[in-house]
Amino acid sequence: MYQETFHIKTSGRGTQNISQQIQNVVRNSGIQTGLCHVFVKHTSASLIICENADPDVRSDLEDWLAREVQDGDPRYRHSMEGADDMAAHIRSILTKMDQTLPVTQGRLALGTWQGLFLYEHRYHGHQRSIVVTVSGS
Amino acid sequence: MYQETFHIKTSGRGTQNISQQIQNVVRNSGIQTGLCHVFVKHTSASLIICENADPDVRSDLEDWLAREVQDGDPRYRHSMEGADDMAAHIRSILTKMDQTLPVTQGRLALGTWQGLFLYEHRYHGHQRSIVVTVSGS
Amino acid sequence: MYQETFHIKTSGRGTQNISQQIQNVVRNSGIQTGLCHVFVKHTSASLIICENADPDVRSDLEDWLAREVQDGDPRYRHSMEGADDMAAHIRSILTKMDQTLPVTQGRLALGTWQGLFLYEHRYHGHQRSIVVTVSGS
Repeated sequence: MYQETFHIKTSGRGTQNISQQIQNVVRNSGIQTGLCHVFVKHTSASLIICENADPDVRSDLEDWLAREVQDGDPRYRHSMEGADDMAAHIRSILTKMDQTLPVTQGRLALGTWQGLFLYEHRYHGHQRSIVVTVSGS
Repeated sequence: MYQETFHIKTSGRGTQNISQQIQNVVRNSGIQTGLCHVFVKHTSASLIICENADPDVRSDLEDWLAREVQDGDPRYRHSMEGADDMAAHIRSILTKMDQTLPVTQGRLALGTWQGLFLYEHRYHGHQRSIVVTVSGS
Repeated sequence: MYQETFHIKTSGRGTQNISQQIQNVVRNSGIQTGLCHVFVKHTSASLIICENADPDVRSDLEDWLAREVQDGDPRYRHSMEGADDMAAHIRSILTKMDQTLPVTQGRLALGTWQGLFLYEHRYHGHQRSIVVTVSGS
């Protein structure tokens, strides 16, 4: 069981591919066969597995989320921290704050088209803490 | 690997913070570094990580879910068990029936604003079985 | 830590119950108490826990997803691979590409009404790779 925490500065709403950073933690762990759990310690950012080739996929996903979970909806009670705040909580719950990935032969066993992305849901950039736990042998 | 099953009586649709109960299981396990997996053995209740300070966040989330996943939608085929039943299944799939959390220094490594909540999606209270599995060393 | 990869040929959009296939892997592992992680190595198929008795539940879920995540929405930029492609990515992210289940007494500790389903989101059938990792003792 190997655990590492690191921090990523986001640059506002949107996704960034963190597959390589997580792969580095798996390498540090020395674990060959097992699982890698990734966890973001926040309620307005999330972790998704998404198609990694065409950035349009993430743009379309963002547009869909923006339509379904309206920023600044006047029906929100929780609105003091800005139009993006409550929407960011709902988006994070829908897209989830953790991911578990298999580790095979010392590497994340992602499919060819899968990337692991940190998704910032606030308008402005934030420092995000990510805990990675690798288990196996 | 430590496993414990416990039961919670819900009081109808809504959320309850179970972070402390899960923390107690982690303590019982004696595990210092690892993972804690929480699983609800039902298809009409779920587990979410949500902002733990302002209850309005959970009210807004509930309102959003109620708008997006309509109770008693006449298009549902599965309707014999009441207006909330099919909606509860969809809500549970969207918000998920399990959560995995890192354990660090013998405690759940939740962020400052993160709480783990059991989300009952049926109108009436139910007895819910929760399996907690803690792995690590 | 036991890991096995297998392949399932889907027959187009829809769900299939894979609980028994996953149970077989758990049996192969010989693990009595632990966790079973199931992962689909694709971005247009997912894994859900759903009510396993009445197939109408899955039909209603499918209808709900089809209404919420429109196929062929003209606002999608990512549209070259067909009307179902971008929708399949969003559906997979909402319903997630992995599931972790407790293992108790050598068996998946699913609730009475829970089944694990592979959800194909493309119109046509695909060969889907699934990695199952069982940990415990």
